[in-house]
Amino acid sequence: MDPIGKTTWVIAEGWIPSSSHGPEPAMLSHETACLLNTGDTDAHVEITVFFADREPVGPYLVTVPARRTLHQRFNDLTDPKPIPAATDYASVIHSDTPIVVQHTRLDSRQAENALLSTIAFPA
Amino acid sequence: MDPIGKTTWVIAEGWIPSSSHGPEPAMLSHETACLLNTGDTDAHVEITVFFADREPVGPYLVTVPARRTLHQRFNDLTDPKPIPAATDYASVIHSDTPIVVQHTRLDSRQAENALLSTIAFPA
Amino acid sequence: MDPIGKTTWVIAEGWIPSSSHGPEPAMLSHETACLLNTGDTDAHVEITVFFADREPVGPYLVTVPARRTLHQRFNDLTDPKPIPAATDYASVIHSDTPIVVQHTRLDSRQAENALLSTIAFPA
Amino acid sequence: MDPIGKTTWVIAEGWIPSSSHGPEPAMLSHETACLLNTGDTDAHVEITVFFADREPVGPYLVTVPARRTLHQRFNDLTDPKPIPAATDYASVIHSDTPIVVQHTRLDSRQAENALLSTIAFPA
Repeated sequence: MDPIGKTTWVIAEGWIPSSSHGPEPAMLSHETACLLNTGDTDAHVEITVFFADREPVGPYLVTVPARRTLHQRFNDLTDPKPIPAATDYASVIHSDTPIVVQHTRLDSRQAENALLSTIAFPA
Repeated sequence: MDPIGKTTWVIAEGWIPSSSHGPEPAMLSHETACLLNTGDTDAHVEITVFFADREPVGPYLVTVPARRTLHQRFNDLTDPKPIPAATDYASVIHSDTPIVVQHTRLDSRQAENALLSTIAFPA
Repeated sequence: MDPIGKTTWVIAEGWIPSSSHGPEPAMLSHETACLLNTGDTDAHVEITVFFADREPVGPYLVTVPARRTLHQRFNDLTDPKPIPAATDYASVIHSDTPIVVQHTRLDSRQAENALLSTIAFPA
Repeated sequence: MDPIGKTTWVIAEGWIPSSSHGPEPAMLSHETACLLNTGDTDAHVEITVFFADREPVGPYLVTVPARRTLHQRFNDLTDPKPIPAATDYASVIHSDTPIVVQHTRLDSRQAENALLSTIAFPA
């Protein structure tokens, strides 16, 4: 299949809840960038994270193999440094081949979880 | 009415919760692609499902009749094979006539349900 | 201010929960089309509702005055006929001047409410 | 990085819940416009708030510094006047340099919170 989507995406909302209820990993509070690469070559993706009060951090490097989806939890990004919890952030996602990006959060700070999701902004 | 929308849509997020609380079918945990065909001819739709660790599966064939909406639960897709629960996936939706696609999940793993929804990405 | 937006919008998801918990009207389960008219003339809006198994119903006529927002609950549309609860539907929203449309549901069938929202599809 | 996004954004949905449960500020019911300025010059932003039954109010002035994100709670806008709770509103966001805007609500009126989020409409 041809690669579908755009090479630059933006998620202006970011906030990793600092606590969780329920069994991990499914119920761990998390923020995720869902990346889909429909094409026949691997997508090399750079994520840059922006904050309210400090310089951007990144790029975080992830690969979405050909014809695969990668649901990348921001919680799991560690290189160059972990993203602090309970901190406002935003992200820009660049890929060397078109991909599609959707943003999701599961917030399990309370006994009952809450969800949000939106398509990212295709720049 | 003229057919409104696009012929290719992408939902980069996909995850069917593996358990539910409450009376079925309304409270069954599910993921849905809401398809609207405003036109005067039937829309023949092919859904291809992408995974993190295996080749894509599909096409799943569904028809949205003229001037109808179809809220297709991914849970209910069985041919060529069911989509496993608690597994990251994504989907590409092709139609032979313009349609509009919106993505929704109801997660009733816990006593109180959670919802998410977003317009799909129009390619 | 100039009128901002588009004259045709689509909400492919629609489903009014059939029960509610909590004080009305705030906690009544509802689906809403949030319409914003930034322009200096009234917007005359026609909403057509599509179903899974019957012909479309409409138009429902609403007016968004100049420089006003109208958060129109689908629950409150009665002419030409009420929209049944617990029934899949979708909607097309036409305006004679550009507007912006966002879709929201509050589901209070259970003790704790759930929310969803997405920008509608600008055709 | 080049400034990414648009200079005009619209959020057609707006409603600040009138009560909250849980520790503030995280669990305070709120509506937020998440603004991201990827560029190398500050973004000077004007927010105009529209209502159902009165003239628009604004502009509210906020600055998003270069290479920063600002998650602006509508609850915290006070000049020219606070936005009333439990009142339908909508907003138009103008910036003098491209930004990206995403809309989020946390509703903690009940014991368990609910979330919604969507990309704003890029005009």
